[in-house]
Amino acid sequence: MLAAAVSALGLAPLYGAAQELIQPIKPPAQINIGMVELGKKLYFDPRLSKSGFISCNSCHNLSMGGTDNIPTSIGDKWQQGPINAPTVLNSSLNLAQFWDGRAADLKAQAGGPIANPGEMGFTHTLAIGVLESIPAYVREFKQVFGKDKVDIDQVTLAIAEFEKTLVTPNSRFDQWLLGKSDALSPQELAGYKLFKESGCVACHNGPAVGGASFQKMGVVEPYKSTGGAEGRSAVTGKDVDRFMFKVPTLRNVEMTYPYFHDGAVNTLPEAVDVMGRLQLGKKFTADENAKVVAFLKTLTGDQPNFALPILPPSSDKTPRPTPFSK
Amino acid sequence: MLAAAVSALGLAPLYGAAQELIQPIKPPAQINIGMVELGKKLYFDPRLSKSGFISCNSCHNLSMGGTDNIPTSIGDKWQQGPINAPTVLNSSLNLAQFWDGRAADLKAQAGGPIANPGEMGFTHTLAIGVLESIPAYVREFKQVFGKDKVDIDQVTLAIAEFEKTLVTPNSRFDQWLLGKSDALSPQELAGYKLFKESGCVACHNGPAVGGASFQKMGVVEPYKSTGGAEGRSAVTGKDVDRFMFKVPTLRNVEMTYPYFHDGAVNTLPEAVDVMGRLQLGKKFTADENAKVVAFLKTLTGDQPNFALPILPPSSDKTPRPTPFSK
Repeated sequence: MLAAAVSALGLAPLYGAAQELIQPIKPPAQINIGMVELGKKLYFDPRLSKSGFISCNSCHNLSMGGTDNIPTSIGDKWQQGPINAPTVLNSSLNLAQFWDGRAADLKAQAGGPIANPGEMGFTHTLAIGVLESIPAYVREFKQVFGKDKVDIDQVTLAIAEFEKTLVTPNSRFDQWLLGKSDALSPQELAGYKLFKESGCVACHNGPAVGGASFQKMGVVEPYKSTGGAEGRSAVTGKDVDRFMFKVPTLRNVEMTYPYFHDGAVNTLPEAVDVMGRLQLGKKFTADENAKVVAFLKTLTGDQPNFALPILPPSSDKTPRPTPFSK
Repeated sequence: MLAAAVSALGLAPLYGAAQELIQPIKPPAQINIGMVELGKKLYFDPRLSKSGFISCNSCHNLSMGGTDNIPTSIGDKWQQGPINAPTVLNSSLNLAQFWDGRAADLKAQAGGPIANPGEMGFTHTLAIGVLESIPAYVREFKQVFGKDKVDIDQVTLAIAEFEKTLVTPNSRFDQWLLGKSDALSPQELAGYKLFKESGCVACHNGPAVGGASFQKMGVVEPYKSTGGAEGRSAVTGKDVDRFMFKVPTLRNVEMTYPYFHDGAVNTLPEAVDVMGRLQLGKKFTADENAKVVAFLKTLTGDQPNFALPILPPSSDKTPRPTPFSK
């Protein structure tokens, strides 16, 4: 019993992937490729914003780990967002979307920023009006969905289908999990051992090394943030859910700085230090910290690899963006 | 003599490409591919801006005809730019860069927006500091330029080398020029004939169908603009150069709306109408207008086709963007 419990917490010595609490990322399965190609265009299309300037890719930039690498995002008219943009990479593996989990899945998430006045600043109705004015889009929606009308369900389904392809297999850590025993250096392996023995893996587990549960930010010590986000309580209305946030994935964490829901921490050594102290009551030594960071950097997988999409041009009837009007 | 003059103005019947004043776009030659790959990353890297949010591709978006498709661009802190962003596509064919030609070539142009307070809002020194803090960039610069130090000359050379690849050969019009006689419909051919006979080709000629001269905006009638740009006089200081602007390329013009230096006109029919009246003293009939527009749409060539670049992550030492500070 004790051995099983210890093993479940990842405290056992390394027996190989079958015993690990982290599993390799799998390539996406069951993908509708026509829907993916349409969703890819929509993901890059700033005409889904009021300004004509902000697309999904603006804040979840696929050149930069699926994030914007700034503490909180820039929205319509340069509004400052309330929270750090989570990476879109491997987001299909999350138990829910947004830091507070208020969207059940990628499709439910995709409609949010378009209509958020502080983000893309548009409305679903106006976005559909734009798409329906563009003949090449109308044809592509009809080809994919078999209907004469474009609607927001199709838009968010297509974006979500594209996002399902944004997984990052083949990290060095996954190569190791899959049996390439020399894929990790002794320092990186020592970091992984520390990651498990210190308890990090209790929350950061599964194929996404996170994304599978909500946990309190600030377990042993409170987390001091200038941001006002209170996490899951905004969804449930329950006081017990204050400061409960979705555990972020650690996949590609070297690329997804700055860290935490408020983006307050710029570097991995600092993030590991804060997490150790606040969540685990553990002060990592400089040597331990370096080892954990070395392990974390082995979680960078193959980044999305596709041709930059070319967007169909607006027609004479397309309503024009209004970046500078109220 | 008269025949030669008529032919030079493009008024002669269609004899084939040899007699035409528009030449096919050629694929880029003499390209340094290592420099192109580096320049491609820099072109997409928003860390060359103060905010970490604006890259070359933000306003010269290669998904959208190398433009931002808004009248005047959005700069740092959502500042409204003074002029329409010209397309980067085929810009290597321009006699000079910017609407007023103030940059002699692509390299000279590339440094401008980075340090323009109303655009990317950064400085060359700060941009170099960011790049030098990123080990993968330092290695790539050394590989390409063979030097230990990164400098702004290397940055702008690499961006310019990438931009040289952004030509758009193989438009239907070019296929026709190269001998595919059925590449154009009778309406499109009639539009081309009108384009020549009306005098459009006097300015819009050469492989870029423009970009080869400065001309006055408002020859027959003055052009009324709410924008304050006065064109080439800002460079030469000469009153005679007021409202002289670089003739824009018409390559991919279906994608590069809105039109004119102030982006005041949204559609090709309107742009053709204004140009006819103001530049040529000619009022195109609805039928003529439709023909010229049909011809213009045959100038859309093969768009850039490359994998979205993946940017090397910042290091712990990289200075962080400051999107919301002064």
